[in-house]
Amino acid sequence: IAKEVSKLLEMKAQLGADEGKHKFVLKTPKGTRDFGPKEMAIRERAFRAIISCFKRHGAEVIDTPVFELKETLTGKYGEDSKLIYDLKDQGGELLSLRYDLTVPFARYLAMNKVTNMKRYHIAKVYRRDNPATTRGRYREFYQCDFDIAGQFDPMIPDAECLKIVHEILSDLQLGDFVIKVNDRRILDGMFAVCGVPDSKFRTICSSVDKLDKVPWEEVRSEMVGEKGLSPEAADRIGEYVQLHGGLDLIERLLQDPKLSQNKLAKEGLGDMKLLFEYLTLFGITGKISFDLSLARGLDYYTGVIFEAVLLQQEKEHGEEPASVGSVAGGGRYDGLVGMFDPKGRKVPCVGVSIGIERIFSILEQRLEASEEKIRTTETQVLVASAQKKLLEERLKLISELWDAGIKAEMLYKKNPKLLNQLQYCEDTGIPLVAIVGEQELKDGVVKLRIVATREEVNVRRESLVEEIRIRTSQC
Amino acid sequence: IAKEVSKLLEMKAQLGADEGKHKFVLKTPKGTRDFGPKEMAIRERAFRAIISCFKRHGAEVIDTPVFELKETLTGKYGEDSKLIYDLKDQGGELLSLRYDLTVPFARYLAMNKVTNMKRYHIAKVYRRDNPATTRGRYREFYQCDFDIAGQFDPMIPDAECLKIVHEILSDLQLGDFVIKVNDRRILDGMFAVCGVPDSKFRTICSSVDKLDKVPWEEVRSEMVGEKGLSPEAADRIGEYVQLHGGLDLIERLLQDPKLSQNKLAKEGLGDMKLLFEYLTLFGITGKISFDLSLARGLDYYTGVIFEAVLLQQEKEHGEEPASVGSVAGGGRYDGLVGMFDPKGRKVPCVGVSIGIERIFSILEQRLEASEEKIRTTETQVLVASAQKKLLEERLKLISELWDAGIKAEMLYKKNPKLLNQLQYCEDTGIPLVAIVGEQELKDGVVKLRIVATREEVNVRRESLVEEIRIRTSQC
Repeated sequence: IAKEVSKLLEMKAQLGADEGKHKFVLKTPKGTRDFGPKEMAIRERAFRAIISCFKRHGAEVIDTPVFELKETLTGKYGEDSKLIYDLKDQGGELLSLRYDLTVPFARYLAMNKVTNMKRYHIAKVYRRDNPATTRGRYREFYQCDFDIAGQFDPMIPDAECLKIVHEILSDLQLGDFVIKVNDRRILDGMFAVCGVPDSKFRTICSSVDKLDKVPWEEVRSEMVGEKGLSPEAADRIGEYVQLHGGLDLIERLLQDPKLSQNKLAKEGLGDMKLLFEYLTLFGITGKISFDLSLARGLDYYTGVIFEAVLLQQEKEHGEEPASVGSVAGGGRYDGLVGMFDPKGRKVPCVGVSIGIERIFSILEQRLEASEEKIRTTETQVLVASAQKKLLEERLKLISELWDAGIKAEMLYKKNPKLLNQLQYCEDTGIPLVAIVGEQELKDGVVKLRIVATREEVNVRRESLVEEIRIRTSQC
Repeated sequence: IAKEVSKLLEMKAQLGADEGKHKFVLKTPKGTRDFGPKEMAIRERAFRAIISCFKRHGAEVIDTPVFELKETLTGKYGEDSKLIYDLKDQGGELLSLRYDLTVPFARYLAMNKVTNMKRYHIAKVYRRDNPATTRGRYREFYQCDFDIAGQFDPMIPDAECLKIVHEILSDLQLGDFVIKVNDRRILDGMFAVCGVPDSKFRTICSSVDKLDKVPWEEVRSEMVGEKGLSPEAADRIGEYVQLHGGLDLIERLLQDPKLSQNKLAKEGLGDMKLLFEYLTLFGITGKISFDLSLARGLDYYTGVIFEAVLLQQEKEHGEEPASVGSVAGGGRYDGLVGMFDPKGRKVPCVGVSIGIERIFSILEQRLEASEEKIRTTETQVLVASAQKKLLEERLKLISELWDAGIKAEMLYKKNPKLLNQLQYCEDTGIPLVAIVGEQELKDGVVKLRIVATREEVNVRRESLVEEIRIRTSQC
């Protein structure tokens, strides 16, 4: 019966599809987009820069499934959990699309009992956000993650993560940027000394996290109104969160009569000082800002947190400021792997995630402005014919070229016009044309035309591969 | 209220996660798997071979979202539709995970009004199958698709698709293989002359599709019993589907008194003859078999269909034959884009999909057998120290190396033992060690150790980058 029902349902669905042809909505789901060949060329450029940085730092690569057991994601994301995509219960396990690459990594470490690993992972993640896609925010988007797992001496891997962000943003030439740094222990210590009850730490942290988007007054009223914090505590927080600076600020807070009495804050500030020493050796403190308003939304952070923000380019007078926002973020999460380990064994981790979609948007805009023409194929030569009835000869020649590793195309017509074949090369940027004609066949040569100069030379058939390689300088 | 409820639910979920720690199932969802660094190294090798072939044939690359509107997938897959993963209705659009890359490609062409394109797409697809994962079948798996869309002269793009399968399987050295070829028009013509009613063509086609897994007797009883075909019609089909061969068989069927009277079959056989002529020019007919039992499950094929199968290696006596099965398949689907176009405009397409998971399994098994050691990182040099208290110096040096594009690592310890640092290089295959020591610092040199030979040379600091490049022959 089940079989019959599914057959009927399917027939109905098929009928429905045919009947409803006019009403059919031809689109990608909300918050997603296709990447056409041009967008892919840009995307692959950005990925190349990022992957080469990750490999420069000795990372291995892993991949995990696009969905996880629902319970794997449960209780890891705090207030953002409502944005997780669930799969329909079709019998069997309850599944959710991954929300980031960090939780799957922690699950991977615990499941394989790995206690020591430096890996990168580049893949799509899914958030049921209400994105402003014009600003490069999507519901399906790539994350490029680099993480260091293992028990090490303090702040050495943390400093490397910041170095990586610095290298990638410099390499991609996205303009000026700043990397804000804070520490969850400093935040928690600050909440404690400001009089926030322990139970409200995480939710008040979520409020502070909004400070990059909304003004303090709004955040304050959320704390006091919605979250029931006392106005005095809120005001004390308000004083701290406007602070940002470098080593000098760290030193000042280490002397702060209230903060210095708090164990967590003191630990955090001590490590922050060490971090700045290492960043000085890396020569990158010029772009780093210790910023007490940085909170990061996710629940799992336990130590250093950071976020890289592109700085506004000087803008035309009266123009709307294009909000670019965060392009990378990360931090230390020492408890997450332990949440998965059956015996609760901890593996300390620190990592960074590059938010590549916004970077794509910027690169796309720049490319459009520059009018640079990008090729979307790598074809070296078009196999063409000057007369009719030479399809067989073209097929034989192109087959020889493919087998020799030459990137070659031909038009899928029996008798294409030479002009159309040359035009195709102009349109797609193919640099060479190998023309077979009756005379050339008799002479055992192929006419090689250089599209840019219109020069034509006869090349002996047995030298053609070599000649194409030399002329496209790919030996 | 909604906010409060979601908060409570979340708190409950969090509690649940803590309480249930012992019962927590630490696994990936059924039919999926992680790729660790070693598996990724193998996967990237296979992808490199496949992508380089696709580029050699002039393909552009695109990417589409992992999910589509549910209605986009409806009515495209026949009896397999029940295997589609649906997302939970969380408000908004109804979504399904993509089942293949062909339907999203057709949707892309129609949506962007593209009438002419040669593209490849490598991405994961999802099928709620009951997979035997030991044989390299999964619910989440990669497809590597190459398709040619556009109105062209017959069988030229079709022949190229078969050439591509031949190139990739040869390149990957997976052992002997055969590419079975048939045509939906020949099948339909055959069904007609055997007395199958029009309405049963697709469902009988599905039965024939099972012939590579189950014997004819079982398929016959499904046709007669479940699908209500007359025994005589089934027996007539039974005679045809055991036929396979080359040009000779095509010629014979063109003379077949019944088939030659059927318009569809005649068209299909005529094109099959043309295809074999082109494949002869490509020099690959030795691996091609025109096989009347090949049906392919999917609904959308309209012309040529094909499937590549690895041939059994000679096996030890008494051993279970390891079923390898199909590693590539594809065909012509001239009607699919029209199903998406608001005006029903057709864009003829033909394409091939490489089933990479089975290829991974084979490559993995082979690698295990060979005991070849694969490196999972590309690190050129480890920055090490011979004495204590040199962390700062190591950080300075490694930062210089990274900035010069050298792939470098260091141990994340303040005072690591030299022996441990050397051992790390042995374990991970790092070929060079740059050792900083007090004397070397005074002399302005770095001691470069070649791990393989244990040779040590002092290199002036300003020449170090160059020396590392030369010694790892990456200029």
